[in-house]
Amino acid sequence: MKEKLSVVKIGGNVIEDSKVLKTFLENFSNLEGKKILVHGGGKRATHIASKLGIESKMINGRRITDADTLEVITMVYGGLVNKNIVAQLQALNINALGLTGADINSITSKKRPVKEIDFGFVGDVESVSHNAIDKLIQADFTPVFCAITHDKNGQLFNTNADTIASELAIGLSKLYNIELYYCFEKNGVLMTVDDDNSVIDYMDSGTYEVLKQDGVFHDGMLPKLENCFHALSSGVSRVFIGNPSVISNKEQKFTTLYL
Amino acid sequence: MKEKLSVVKIGGNVIEDSKVLKTFLENFSNLEGKKILVHGGGKRATHIASKLGIESKMINGRRITDADTLEVITMVYGGLVNKNIVAQLQALNINALGLTGADINSITSKKRPVKEIDFGFVGDVESVSHNAIDKLIQADFTPVFCAITHDKNGQLFNTNADTIASELAIGLSKLYNIELYYCFEKNGVLMTVDDDNSVIDYMDSGTYEVLKQDGVFHDGMLPKLENCFHALSSGVSRVFIGNPSVISNKEQKFTTLYL
Repeated sequence: MKEKLSVVKIGGNVIEDSKVLKTFLENFSNLEGKKILVHGGGKRATHIASKLGIESKMINGRRITDADTLEVITMVYGGLVNKNIVAQLQALNINALGLTGADINSITSKKRPVKEIDFGFVGDVESVSHNAIDKLIQADFTPVFCAITHDKNGQLFNTNADTIASELAIGLSKLYNIELYYCFEKNGVLMTVDDDNSVIDYMDSGTYEVLKQDGVFHDGMLPKLENCFHALSSGVSRVFIGNPSVISNKEQKFTTLYL
Repeated sequence: MKEKLSVVKIGGNVIEDSKVLKTFLENFSNLEGKKILVHGGGKRATHIASKLGIESKMINGRRITDADTLEVITMVYGGLVNKNIVAQLQALNINALGLTGADINSITSKKRPVKEIDFGFVGDVESVSHNAIDKLIQADFTPVFCAITHDKNGQLFNTNADTIASELAIGLSKLYNIELYYCFEKNGVLMTVDDDNSVIDYMDSGTYEVLKQDGVFHDGMLPKLENCFHALSSGVSRVFIGNPSVISNKEQKFTTLYL
């Protein structure tokens, strides 16, 4: 029986509100067992880019990352957000260590191929060095990953944080029994997008396919769910989707995904 | 006999010129044995602060760090500069890992006491977790430290990079035979400040005291040398001061300090 490892991903709604972040990090510090945190950067990067006179271009909710935008992302995700989370976790006696995919060569990626759209310095994950990351975990450090990877040739890439979380979860499932948490602004996956109480409690891959055909899931949720079922079919034990308190309060509503 | 560990500090002149940095990192990658890199951020932070409308206040060459300036430093030192160095070292097959003092609680500090001047969020080093850092070194990772520390209560601090290098060197001298390198814009410590060829080859603490009394060292060099002799009297074996190629080319001029 493999030891449990929790991989927890938080989105912009958690990072952008310092009170919400503080509460989340307290809950994260109380989460039992070995764990990894993954965060994006959200509107903070857009805000700082704008102040620096760099226009943020989004297509289908994805950021087009030119050289200037990559610099801002490296500053905001890899510096400002990551190091403040690490310092706050240290104050909670979690021995946190902030990382990009370049650090210890943990996550490599390659530039997303140009089809209709050139996303610029956006990388699709190629490999996760689960043995290198495990050296940190075995040393009782708690890795905190931001949404940046590299190509092992000196180039950093902006990379989707949901994907980073699922790829880390898949890679580490060779060594651990992985529970993957996605914390976002809703209470879970909803049957009716406007009804916060319509949380789907449990969903297996069969139900998912049926509901997808029925058009239940909106455009923002579909790639998240694809990510989750990809993780489940690649070695991850369970996926939980809910608001940030899902990691500490199993009484509340949230969605559990399984194969 | 303890194993050798090199601690190498680079200043703004190396970081700000991408060609100089590239050459330095190639030399660093060829430096034999275990090693640690320490870098500041230099003018890049001033430049980005200025673009963000934040005025940089310097007193006696030290930056006054208000909350906005600390954010810029965290972005530039901890994100932009650190992660690009890590990615470039990875391309050279050095398994680099970027850190602030908050990461793995490696370097704690406390706010510099207010005397005539309130330096703001500037921290004086209190402790170095040499055992935690050694776990990374033993795992064959190469730590890359930027000039940021923390107070273990969630607060990050801007901290002098020369001091970080000497405190890391002192802390790790409990475990390793430490050679400490300071790479800067001159060829070494100069007898005559305007004459680049007047490099002092060797200087022990006795000679240092005599030359200091004679007023040989200018204001910028004095705190560097105080740092160095403090390190030497606290367990560090040797200190080398020179231009960035001092780490690879022992034929050129540079200064060696010893007790």
